[in-house]
Amino acid sequence: MTEPQFFKAPAGLTVGQIAELTGARVCAGARLEHLISNVAPLDRAGPHDLAFIDNAQYLDALISTGAGACLAVERFAAKAPSRINVLCIAEPYPAFVAVARRLYPEALRPTTLFGSQGVAPGAVVHPSARIESEVTIDPGAVIGPHAGIGAGTVICATAVIGPHVQIGRHCSIGAGCSITHAVIGDDVILHPGVRIGQDGFRYQLGARGHTKAPQLGRVIIQDHVEIGAGTTIDRGASGDTMIGEGTKIDNLVQIGHNVIVGRNCIIVAQCGISGSAVLGDNVILAGQVGIADHLTIGEGAMIGAKSGVGSDVPAGEKWFGYPACPSQEFIRATVALRRAGRSRKKD
Amino acid sequence: MTEPQFFKAPAGLTVGQIAELTGARVCAGARLEHLISNVAPLDRAGPHDLAFIDNAQYLDALISTGAGACLAVERFAAKAPSRINVLCIAEPYPAFVAVARRLYPEALRPTTLFGSQGVAPGAVVHPSARIESEVTIDPGAVIGPHAGIGAGTVICATAVIGPHVQIGRHCSIGAGCSITHAVIGDDVILHPGVRIGQDGFRYQLGARGHTKAPQLGRVIIQDHVEIGAGTTIDRGASGDTMIGEGTKIDNLVQIGHNVIVGRNCIIVAQCGISGSAVLGDNVILAGQVGIADHLTIGEGAMIGAKSGVGSDVPAGEKWFGYPACPSQEFIRATVALRRAGRSRKKD
Amino acid sequence: MTEPQFFKAPAGLTVGQIAELTGARVCAGARLEHLISNVAPLDRAGPHDLAFIDNAQYLDALISTGAGACLAVERFAAKAPSRINVLCIAEPYPAFVAVARRLYPEALRPTTLFGSQGVAPGAVVHPSARIESEVTIDPGAVIGPHAGIGAGTVICATAVIGPHVQIGRHCSIGAGCSITHAVIGDDVILHPGVRIGQDGFRYQLGARGHTKAPQLGRVIIQDHVEIGAGTTIDRGASGDTMIGEGTKIDNLVQIGHNVIVGRNCIIVAQCGISGSAVLGDNVILAGQVGIADHLTIGEGAMIGAKSGVGSDVPAGEKWFGYPACPSQEFIRATVALRRAGRSRKKD
Repeated sequence: MTEPQFFKAPAGLTVGQIAELTGARVCAGARLEHLISNVAPLDRAGPHDLAFIDNAQYLDALISTGAGACLAVERFAAKAPSRINVLCIAEPYPAFVAVARRLYPEALRPTTLFGSQGVAPGAVVHPSARIESEVTIDPGAVIGPHAGIGAGTVICATAVIGPHVQIGRHCSIGAGCSITHAVIGDDVILHPGVRIGQDGFRYQLGARGHTKAPQLGRVIIQDHVEIGAGTTIDRGASGDTMIGEGTKIDNLVQIGHNVIVGRNCIIVAQCGISGSAVLGDNVILAGQVGIADHLTIGEGAMIGAKSGVGSDVPAGEKWFGYPACPSQEFIRATVALRRAGRSRKKD
Repeated sequence: MTEPQFFKAPAGLTVGQIAELTGARVCAGARLEHLISNVAPLDRAGPHDLAFIDNAQYLDALISTGAGACLAVERFAAKAPSRINVLCIAEPYPAFVAVARRLYPEALRPTTLFGSQGVAPGAVVHPSARIESEVTIDPGAVIGPHAGIGAGTVICATAVIGPHVQIGRHCSIGAGCSITHAVIGDDVILHPGVRIGQDGFRYQLGARGHTKAPQLGRVIIQDHVEIGAGTTIDRGASGDTMIGEGTKIDNLVQIGHNVIVGRNCIIVAQCGISGSAVLGDNVILAGQVGIADHLTIGEGAMIGAKSGVGSDVPAGEKWFGYPACPSQEFIRATVALRRAGRSRKKD
Repeated sequence: MTEPQFFKAPAGLTVGQIAELTGARVCAGARLEHLISNVAPLDRAGPHDLAFIDNAQYLDALISTGAGACLAVERFAAKAPSRINVLCIAEPYPAFVAVARRLYPEALRPTTLFGSQGVAPGAVVHPSARIESEVTIDPGAVIGPHAGIGAGTVICATAVIGPHVQIGRHCSIGAGCSITHAVIGDDVILHPGVRIGQDGFRYQLGARGHTKAPQLGRVIIQDHVEIGAGTTIDRGASGDTMIGEGTKIDNLVQIGHNVIVGRNCIIVAQCGISGSAVLGDNVILAGQVGIADHLTIGEGAMIGAKSGVGSDVPAGEKWFGYPACPSQEFIRATVALRRAGRSRKKD
């Protein structure tokens, strides 16, 4: 039995075509007609694979690689064995990604899990839903009344789209997602099990019990957003929860009601963003970060992994720690603490 | 195209009716017949919206608001522009919530995602299940043998109710939930993707492999509990995992086997409560808190965000930190640490 | 109404049969024919229940227990009331687990939620899927093209198995799981809502937007692995994400692309393992631990709860803290910090 094949074998590109696609310079001795049909890291690449090198720590791997071609920065190009077709470029990784995207167009977004076209048998679509052309709806998916699904969008098996929800074009909605009280733009990817639009967590606390504050807002997801498996985004209490264009969110992230996330943010797995927090554009949160409610994280700020942020972070700053502070302070405090621990040992 | 409307436009209440509902005092000049049809924050409110103010930081917003009416504490009432109908009350927020609840009764709990009544086509209900009157079961939901669903309960699309599970009356079970080995009270809300009743995490560890300890208990969820999207609650090993009446749990929380959570607790997103821990009544855990196994958190204790609790917490105390300690100690230690970091800088 | 019965009442074992099964020594006075039909903790055990004691803190419970039989270490055996059938053994807990496993064979892995046999009506199986004998597929499950399901495996309600995925024999795939781009061994248990095989989180970052790097690898799950509810495991970028034989993973864990987890590891709830990290065999991660990308955690290392690991951990070491360091250092630093906090109080 052969190994399972999850993506179609690519037709491939010649070394010359890769140079053209990426703008790389073909180094002396390279065979322009050599066919590249896959991408791989240097240490596992074979004669029809493209690899790349942009870091001196992989020089040994370069020398022993079996790769058919390699994208390399200038200073490493000369180190490559002559059997390799070398393509010289200032930034090899983006070029490598560009080739991988060309070879595997079907890997750019999740697709039907059932080989479906149109509405599969076993999908349940409300007659009042508005389904545009070339929409794929897998078995077990449920589309509620007055929902709208834009052209070219794929709704994977067992995903549930609630009443009146609007989804744009060329989106991929993963298996088992649920979406309610939401408006979703174009080219949005939701990985499996994403939960969008449920009630935010707000109660009028009382000694004898807590009273739920109705959650009346929506979730707005702008174009080109990608959201990881199992992530939860609550709808606004009265205004909306917003995820800005081009933002990428990893798995198991929690985003509370009325949060505003700017454009092109990166939010790594298991972060939690409390209600009404605001993230500017291009903010990066590393894994397991927590942001307290109503805070503002300025444009371009970066927060280190597992930080607990309890105050506003100015634009462009790097913060770290619990409670989070500017990274340099955190590093100094950690060093001081370790020193204190060691001197105590001597006591 | 108009904006999607996720909730029905409310019939509205007059200022006089709001005064009656909330017990607020109508301030001089207010028009009792003015119609209020929505709620909104001061800065976004229009002429038929009710807003509220209980904090001086919103005084500017009060002065420029377009709100038709405002619930205000006594000392702010006189600051409101004369165009606003002012309702004077000691605690504006609970009154605001009461009005919102009256305006939007359908927002008090999740409802069918398919406009279903009764058992929708595409739902799969075992013939031995006992379904009371006025139960709604959406398409794609699966109800196992001998399960019982109480009157007025809604089972949303693709939710799965396992064999013998008993669910009370007027519950809402969100899309994609799974419930096994559990008994659930009345007026319980489960948001989408909640996982209840799977095996706890217990093995007899061995150098050559780990042996699963059978998990033979149940999960008991008492009345008026609300559980957020993606939260997981494991069943007991031999006894039961219990969630006390009125407790509210946010998204992506993990509750281990044999945990006992008291009444009216608040557990914010991404907390983890390890096996056999006991929380008294009215405990509050802020976001991302971890509680080690077999600990007792006393009645009314409050644990700060992202704390790692490794020892019992006495009733009524506020703890914070990693490892968690009384909040005052944590604050002092943090200050000392920052000072040490700064003095090290001067070295 | 009687209490819901989630497991069949066991036929039971005599005290003599328990001695034989576990190798325990029957103490003087024990009645070999006494029937044991259940297991329970000392404080709740009745005349036909088996309990165990291996810790002096439970001696009071031993003296007042109503248990029919008790597994006990030598030094506690004499303390038991004469009405109890005492079985003497060096390690009571493993013996207790062995009896529980014999009494409740159906609790060893999740089973059908619908009393199904074969492919239930309401399941959707692609005609090209290869389903071996004695496979159970619940209603609402979806099996994609060219998927393979091994003999004796159970696919619970609404689980989704993507194209070409291979699942071994005697596996249990919980309700609402989704599996794509994966090869899964024998005797694997996935609890509800597990997400396997979605894209890893990797982008070519750019000031004007981020470009997705295609994720071309797989997830390989070896035999005897168990994975908790809501856990997410991303597929490899070019190589594979691997979970080694016998490893047990708890709920809501995140495992990034290209992570290699060794054999017989224990990974407690809400841990996050970043891309390309490598865990040796028998590593233990306590709850809410974070591991940064590309790190190596050596064989047998143990990481304390909520630690944030930012550097490699040598084999066999115990680390703790944020940032994590050897446990002794963390403890000393914590003590020093508390002392600094207290002396500051005196200022």
